[in-house]
Amino acid sequence: MIIQKTSNSRIGEFDPENIGFGTAFIDHMIVCEYENGKWGEVRLMPYGPLPFTPAMMGVNYGQACFEGMKAYKDKDGEVYLFRPEKNFERINKSAKRLAMPEITEEMFIGGLKALVDMDRNWIPYGEGKSLYIRPLIFATEEALKARIANKYMFAIVATPVQSYYTEPVSVKISDFYSRAASGGVGSAKAAGNYAASFYPTKLAAEEGYEQIIWTDDATHKYFEESGTMNVFVRINDTIYTPPTSEKILDGVTRDSFLQLAKHRGIDVKVEPVEVAKVLEAHSKEELIEVWGVGTAVVTSVFKAIGYKDQKLTLPELSEEESFALTLKKALVDIQTNKAEDPFGWRVKVEKHILETA
Amino acid sequence: MIIQKTSNSRIGEFDPENIGFGTAFIDHMIVCEYENGKWGEVRLMPYGPLPFTPAMMGVNYGQACFEGMKAYKDKDGEVYLFRPEKNFERINKSAKRLAMPEITEEMFIGGLKALVDMDRNWIPYGEGKSLYIRPLIFATEEALKARIANKYMFAIVATPVQSYYTEPVSVKISDFYSRAASGGVGSAKAAGNYAASFYPTKLAAEEGYEQIIWTDDATHKYFEESGTMNVFVRINDTIYTPPTSEKILDGVTRDSFLQLAKHRGIDVKVEPVEVAKVLEAHSKEELIEVWGVGTAVVTSVFKAIGYKDQKLTLPELSEEESFALTLKKALVDIQTNKAEDPFGWRVKVEKHILETA
Repeated sequence: MIIQKTSNSRIGEFDPENIGFGTAFIDHMIVCEYENGKWGEVRLMPYGPLPFTPAMMGVNYGQACFEGMKAYKDKDGEVYLFRPEKNFERINKSAKRLAMPEITEEMFIGGLKALVDMDRNWIPYGEGKSLYIRPLIFATEEALKARIANKYMFAIVATPVQSYYTEPVSVKISDFYSRAASGGVGSAKAAGNYAASFYPTKLAAEEGYEQIIWTDDATHKYFEESGTMNVFVRINDTIYTPPTSEKILDGVTRDSFLQLAKHRGIDVKVEPVEVAKVLEAHSKEELIEVWGVGTAVVTSVFKAIGYKDQKLTLPELSEEESFALTLKKALVDIQTNKAEDPFGWRVKVEKHILETA
Repeated sequence: MIIQKTSNSRIGEFDPENIGFGTAFIDHMIVCEYENGKWGEVRLMPYGPLPFTPAMMGVNYGQACFEGMKAYKDKDGEVYLFRPEKNFERINKSAKRLAMPEITEEMFIGGLKALVDMDRNWIPYGEGKSLYIRPLIFATEEALKARIANKYMFAIVATPVQSYYTEPVSVKISDFYSRAASGGVGSAKAAGNYAASFYPTKLAAEEGYEQIIWTDDATHKYFEESGTMNVFVRINDTIYTPPTSEKILDGVTRDSFLQLAKHRGIDVKVEPVEVAKVLEAHSKEELIEVWGVGTAVVTSVFKAIGYKDQKLTLPELSEEESFALTLKKALVDIQTNKAEDPFGWRVKVEKHILETA
């Protein structure tokens, strides 16, 4: 690894009591370039602009995928990653589906640890606070032909974040727009999947909904995801979530929720979730909770679900009654080293990794 | 418009007799930036790198769309664009679907004409030669939150091209992968659509096919597009092509072929094209031609079509017998001012636009 430390740290301007989301970047970033069929050396360097022309294939043909993950600080100032090997596996699945070169574990995990260690002073401590980390791969070759690119960049950038208490939101079940095609790239964290969701979400917002529950594009009869999250439904005391497929992202938070629920003896069914079944459960007052899970907010609780002209109100539950909030707390406690970690999910970031390597 | 002429023209290195496709760029480019809810002034400036960080939203969330078009030089050295208003309309349709700001006609048409005029010496003259032009819009804001960006760039870059004689190709009818979801972004020239197609195309190449005929993702029973082109099928003396929809690109070459065919009295049917109907026509020896159309190659003739384990061979036709090649010649003759233009498609690029503006 090539190390280039900044001589102009911006940490003096950083106020851990007053954090936005995703717009202030830590001092350094990881960069590695692919050319002539192989990845070069990983560089840890000051965060900042690099030279790209508008002919860069990444913005022309969308060969670009990413991961979202977090580093947490505990009360003793120790720093942890959460299941980083899952993100490593997934970025390579995404890369493969987009015909991009896969990366090595050393680049991904080694790069992550070096960056997080170097800028550990940027990681805020406290309720809902963490460092949001964005590994990504994108095509950098300059060419105007729709083909697999020959040059790529792997990068890791990061920003301190605060998950403010989020009010329960209203969501709309999509009956026209969709985020993924059968045989498409829905299961990849492909850049293009996100852009495709913005306009339908804007239309839903105009109707008073914060998010869309995406349904299958052919029939709109089955739940797929919600917003940029995996979706869970609780009917009576059973939790349902759709199985992952080439259309549904294999979310790390989704998998962790499933394991935590099983560990607590909650009845979990991973099976197709039919819109009609959810509506019927609501009419019988058996629809207890519906929520989304993802790295950024951990859990987004839904207070109402729109379907065509109906708006179904969901019960308000206390933290003890709610599976969503109980599982969220259990997960966050493991992430932030407030609880035992029977699953071996936490990965400690040792200090001075680079000096001792 | 802000004009910044290069002081280091690279045109001395450019050999119009030895042109690649899409990797040598003309001296200048158009750039315009969007911020605080509005587009700034258009700049005509030297082609080259601009500063972007890996947190640029365009490569993280895929808000990026483009157009493909060409400028042609006639025997007298006059320069023409082809139906640029169609590309202008379409880039704004793409922008809208991706929740990006639309651009003005002055930015698009004015920028195009100024750039093409400034670098008109880069436009090669002769059979199959032209200047390939790439207008694009992409999100430039640095932020790690999946939301509509606040900053964008509109740019136009261009490269001299030579359409070499292209051998007829073999194409595979997709029965698993797909390029567009119902309610998705297939009709937009969204960057992400292209990346999604590369891996399935690579798999088809491993089976000996150059392209994929994309079918509807739900049933794979209907033709949608072929490769990055619209698809035409000729059964006996009738031409069929699927209607445009939110899944199928409204191609300028497609529309021009339809108008040219009707103008010549060829029977044209714009209706869903069923895979079964194409296979049946082949078995009756009534499947005469299948081809793709698009700006880059104008026409790609298919010599064989793969479907599951079958490989259907298509007849070899002379240029006179082939509707595909007859219509291609008619179109190129209009584009390059070798023929009358009864449709009013050619748009002449006047000299010294900027001086006289």
